[in-house]
Amino acid sequence: MSNEKKFVEEITSMDVDFARWYTDIVKKADLIEYTSVKGCCVIRPYAYAIWENMKSVLDSMFKETGHENIYMPMFIPESLLQKEKDHVEGFAPEVAWVTHGGTEKLQERLCVRPTSETLFCEHYKNIIESHRDLPKLYNQWCSVVRWEKTTRPFLRSAEFLWQEGHTAHATAEEAQEETIKMLNVYAKFCEEYLAIPVVKGRKTDKEKFAGAVATYTIESLMHDGKALQSGTSHNFGDGFAKAFGIEYTDKDNKKQNVFQTSWGVTTRLIGAVIMVHGDDSGLVLPPKIAPVQLVILPIAMHKGGVLEKAEEIKNKLSSFKVKIDASDKTPGWKFSEYEMKGVPLRLEIGPKDIEKNQCVLVRRDTREKIFVSLDELEAKVAELLEDIQSSLYNKALEHREETTNVAKTYDEFKEIVATKPGFVKAMWCGDVECENKIKEDTTATARCMPFEQEEISDTCVCCGKKAKAMVYWGKAY
Amino acid sequence: MSNEKKFVEEITSMDVDFARWYTDIVKKADLIEYTSVKGCCVIRPYAYAIWENMKSVLDSMFKETGHENIYMPMFIPESLLQKEKDHVEGFAPEVAWVTHGGTEKLQERLCVRPTSETLFCEHYKNIIESHRDLPKLYNQWCSVVRWEKTTRPFLRSAEFLWQEGHTAHATAEEAQEETIKMLNVYAKFCEEYLAIPVVKGRKTDKEKFAGAVATYTIESLMHDGKALQSGTSHNFGDGFAKAFGIEYTDKDNKKQNVFQTSWGVTTRLIGAVIMVHGDDSGLVLPPKIAPVQLVILPIAMHKGGVLEKAEEIKNKLSSFKVKIDASDKTPGWKFSEYEMKGVPLRLEIGPKDIEKNQCVLVRRDTREKIFVSLDELEAKVAELLEDIQSSLYNKALEHREETTNVAKTYDEFKEIVATKPGFVKAMWCGDVECENKIKEDTTATARCMPFEQEEISDTCVCCGKKAKAMVYWGKAY
Repeated sequence: MSNEKKFVEEITSMDVDFARWYTDIVKKADLIEYTSVKGCCVIRPYAYAIWENMKSVLDSMFKETGHENIYMPMFIPESLLQKEKDHVEGFAPEVAWVTHGGTEKLQERLCVRPTSETLFCEHYKNIIESHRDLPKLYNQWCSVVRWEKTTRPFLRSAEFLWQEGHTAHATAEEAQEETIKMLNVYAKFCEEYLAIPVVKGRKTDKEKFAGAVATYTIESLMHDGKALQSGTSHNFGDGFAKAFGIEYTDKDNKKQNVFQTSWGVTTRLIGAVIMVHGDDSGLVLPPKIAPVQLVILPIAMHKGGVLEKAEEIKNKLSSFKVKIDASDKTPGWKFSEYEMKGVPLRLEIGPKDIEKNQCVLVRRDTREKIFVSLDELEAKVAELLEDIQSSLYNKALEHREETTNVAKTYDEFKEIVATKPGFVKAMWCGDVECENKIKEDTTATARCMPFEQEEISDTCVCCGKKAKAMVYWGKAY
Repeated sequence: MSNEKKFVEEITSMDVDFARWYTDIVKKADLIEYTSVKGCCVIRPYAYAIWENMKSVLDSMFKETGHENIYMPMFIPESLLQKEKDHVEGFAPEVAWVTHGGTEKLQERLCVRPTSETLFCEHYKNIIESHRDLPKLYNQWCSVVRWEKTTRPFLRSAEFLWQEGHTAHATAEEAQEETIKMLNVYAKFCEEYLAIPVVKGRKTDKEKFAGAVATYTIESLMHDGKALQSGTSHNFGDGFAKAFGIEYTDKDNKKQNVFQTSWGVTTRLIGAVIMVHGDDSGLVLPPKIAPVQLVILPIAMHKGGVLEKAEEIKNKLSSFKVKIDASDKTPGWKFSEYEMKGVPLRLEIGPKDIEKNQCVLVRRDTREKIFVSLDELEAKVAELLEDIQSSLYNKALEHREETTNVAKTYDEFKEIVATKPGFVKAMWCGDVECENKIKEDTTATARCMPFEQEEISDTCVCCGKKAKAMVYWGKAY
């Protein structure tokens, strides 16, 4: 027990300091290690395994919706980045520039890709000729670099891993359909696999992607009441196509510009999982993306038959991701370790259990202890993992609903933002001036105009003019 | 037929100009598209799907041998790169340097990783404390950059995709065992999945990796008789550990340096597949890594029931990677297209076949036409794919054996290199002077000292002094 306590005591409580709690977990659960490269971290095997699980599900969802993977160069020549005006203005201030190859100065600077619209556009211009070549539904898994001043593991780092979908279509309608389809894929992934409820909606013009006609987003709420933009899907219209000259010959033999989209999610989703489900003992992982779903801890291992029984159980549970920890660490240390790592189920088995043909299962989320007959183990584990997955989602949804407030007046709005964590739903006139004023007065930003609109009142919460949309506002990561 | 001819005519014959044949295939099979970034290509979906298949097999093999995936930053600070003397000398001349982040000049230049030994060493120094932390068996899938002057798709490019394994062990013996184990994994992968026979051996000191004690390699022979280094595995001894101060406390509580290895294969393996198996009609893909194993071409599609039958067959063959091409292109065009793409089997089905409850299978490798009853289709496809896989291997092995010559005297050696493609087996004294002279006189280099040594003679083929080893020599990519 002393070991266990010591281990747990080293973590800051989330209620005392959420930011420190977060960085404590990130270190103690072996997710991240800092490096001598400013703003760049090592994504350690346990975190990378979570990312691999996410990738594998998302990749299947992309392929089922007809997308193919591709790989573009990591460098973008300065002249190529500059072809679309809004785009370069949005990204140039935060890119890393390569100026030398070996000992030679380059004739033209190359930036390390912050996102690859310009490369995809160049490629589409080369390979699209006829309406028969459309649509092009491509996706890329890679790392990108944005030279951020302040960084936080997973949430904001100079380099991060992501996927970026880039598609080209014959019509504006098809591009819009694709944009929404992929937003729905992201929402489904977050809710069903990460157990994170999301609000789907459209970004305001101020918050949209550099070069997009419209940006759609899924917004989720962290345990501390701050919002996290968890995935975005952009409709580019034909803006990039015009800037890059991407044309196809239609059925009437006329030249037309293509219509494009892009959409992406990043390793920041690992940060979301930590901040939505974690507690003061560490990570709590949704079973569907946990690298280890169940850890077997043999008790009194020196006694004959215990290890053998543990192996037998592992083999029986081969349809789950199971690990045995037969190291010589104390049980207390192991309990803390696997709680810290958020393993959904712990299975304890000792000589007395073996005598009774049973074992003990302990849920990570509720800490409930369940004695299970070994004959019913497989079914029980399946049932519990499912229950943990849905409980996590329901708990997160409940938390979001409890911390989502409605503001009808600006005084109400300011008071809520100042005193209560969470989203604020309030009406907006559509003017960027009000958006700027709200940010200045409260630090809250427009998270999105949700697809599910409610008519809270007729007038903008800020200026009192006619309202155009209900907006989810919040402080954000 | 005119379409088909036109399509095929556009490819240079391999006997006329192997280099042009290669670049023709790379373009016409939709593997690569050039970009405005010097030396960097787009890896198009068809090529990327081949890489994904390779990755998936290799990744399983790595995990089965106890390795975990991890992700390191893509940047290396100049001071970190310089810590190991031989290593920096080997790589500094060919790295890309980042000097600016946004509008600010960096205090220290960062290179884009050409390989990540230095980052792994920094990480190992941070996380290894005790003998209980060993071994560390890590692998990384990523892209790396080497500023090459002359580039060729897949074989030599400024940026390429690869995996790099990096391990740390308590003893020199364990490190050596790991080095050979992973070389064997690569050899097994090349032979069983890529159908490419390899020679396993050790590199001479001149050819070894910058910073390694010993480098082991698998060497394969391309159709034109040139050698391709297809995978390498390095034993670092404790050289990096000493340079970086990576120590662990052993069981007697004494500080010890770790012993390290690294090993990697790259997208150049796609180049190997093209150059070992391809022919004048295009790619020939081994079934085990083909993105499409069988393409169904419905004949006279306008006739009732043909498309339905094609779909029915596709469902029946769901254990294989099957695609139907129901586009309105001519059969001749389609034949050429899927030959170019190296799809192992083509299935033709038309109204007359349906009447007879049969279809036609055509092998890509031999072009043999086989009429198969639809009742036996699944078994026949499985059998044929297996046969194609082993035939490709046997054909490549035969070709290598036919083009491997033995030289006892230097005159013989020079004549063989000048007149015959392929490997030359000859004895070597171990002196770099002879290695240099041979390269100068013939352009052939020491590919490796094979594990399977033969005693061709007692003396070095070049200087006549006592021989130390038999070497495979050859011109190389």
